[in-house]
Amino acid sequence: MQNYKLTLAYDGTRYYGWQRLGSGDHTIQSKLEEVLSRFDGSPVEVHGSGRTDAGVHAKGQVASFKLKNDTDCETLLKHLRKFLPADIGALSLEKADERFHARLSAGSKTYCYTLWTHEEPCVFERKYAYVFRDALDLDAMRQAADILCGTHDFSAFCSNRHMKKSTVRTVNRIDFEATPHGMRISFTGEGFLYHMVRIMVGTLLEVGRGDRTAQSVAKLFGGKREDAGYTAPACGLCLMEVRY
Amino acid sequence: MQNYKLTLAYDGTRYYGWQRLGSGDHTIQSKLEEVLSRFDGSPVEVHGSGRTDAGVHAKGQVASFKLKNDTDCETLLKHLRKFLPADIGALSLEKADERFHARLSAGSKTYCYTLWTHEEPCVFERKYAYVFRDALDLDAMRQAADILCGTHDFSAFCSNRHMKKSTVRTVNRIDFEATPHGMRISFTGEGFLYHMVRIMVGTLLEVGRGDRTAQSVAKLFGGKREDAGYTAPACGLCLMEVRY
Repeated sequence: MQNYKLTLAYDGTRYYGWQRLGSGDHTIQSKLEEVLSRFDGSPVEVHGSGRTDAGVHAKGQVASFKLKNDTDCETLLKHLRKFLPADIGALSLEKADERFHARLSAGSKTYCYTLWTHEEPCVFERKYAYVFRDALDLDAMRQAADILCGTHDFSAFCSNRHMKKSTVRTVNRIDFEATPHGMRISFTGEGFLYHMVRIMVGTLLEVGRGDRTAQSVAKLFGGKREDAGYTAPACGLCLMEVRY
Repeated sequence: MQNYKLTLAYDGTRYYGWQRLGSGDHTIQSKLEEVLSRFDGSPVEVHGSGRTDAGVHAKGQVASFKLKNDTDCETLLKHLRKFLPADIGALSLEKADERFHARLSAGSKTYCYTLWTHEEPCVFERKYAYVFRDALDLDAMRQAADILCGTHDFSAFCSNRHMKKSTVRTVNRIDFEATPHGMRISFTGEGFLYHMVRIMVGTLLEVGRGDRTAQSVAKLFGGKREDAGYTAPACGLCLMEVRY
């Protein structure tokens, strides 16, 4: 068996997320497995660096899979580009060591969340940004973001209420970047819990509009889901990069 | 009657172009007239600076219309933003002199054509760019573009075979701009014929890949439609600005 590492972009709008749900579902994993299985002549299992939720996009998702047939990457990449739907793009492909696993080998990941705050309608970005027009106190948001960085128990930032494993995670950095019509907030960390980035965004927005103070965010660690902010919509989120 | 000037953006993907075709059609003009007529309580006719074809986008289309009721722009703009579909955005609105007419008063217009030439799949731009991966001789394309600029008989660049009026037009400038995955070609002129920009793009691409020489473009003026290049796809085209 030959192991491969694939880097992908996808527009998540039409999909029920990354993770396969069953035969004939509309997930990124299923589409990939379908195309790869046809190529290899037998069922192929694809591992993603992590599951992206329904409606979440990716510009740098990484997947790994093993094929029976040792094929050159150029041929396989052409096959993927030919048979994947237009909203899933195979960016690059390389052969990987047999121990490489997209999820288990992953180091840090960067997610980016796009906010459209401008009063003008959001026409071309409407599927890739969250329109949020309340006034935002950016200084307070930055202060709250500084508090979120580091190693903490992010239990309050996890939508999975039956999480049995540790909810301790490390957020390496949160960066704010102004755009012509709003801002992008990027989150780099070593693994995120279910909905964690979107709940951090919702919490930062609540701080930004004055519903909670920046300092109060420190009290959320180890807390319950209902203590933290709302889950910001999926469409604003994009998985940008996975490091190995 | 109060005259208004409206600046619009729209994603043309879902529409049969600007121009109203009949009741219940799916055109930008109809959607606008529907929303404005409801607001004014009687039928409103909207004039665009020009018709954009099915699938063509706009980031700065201008329209004019007259309302019975003299309303402040803020109220009307709110109404438009509330009732127009998400893929049609009212950018700005102002009261205009009664003689102002979006088409008849228009000076120059700028259209932009986006080419995706990179080998990577075009995922997020797939509805807003034309994917073209043949090697292009940019110098030859620039030479041909220089020849197209100026006042000429653009008969060969007009898809309307029954055009009775003059096919003489003035192209003020054609600019090339590199993008991370391709290029944008912008065309500024005082009015364009039916499909003229898309046929200029098709002709420039044929020059770029060596199917015709840059110099041969000079022989197209006053010629027939079949002499010029093909009509590049609508999705790559966007009306950027109309000057008055």
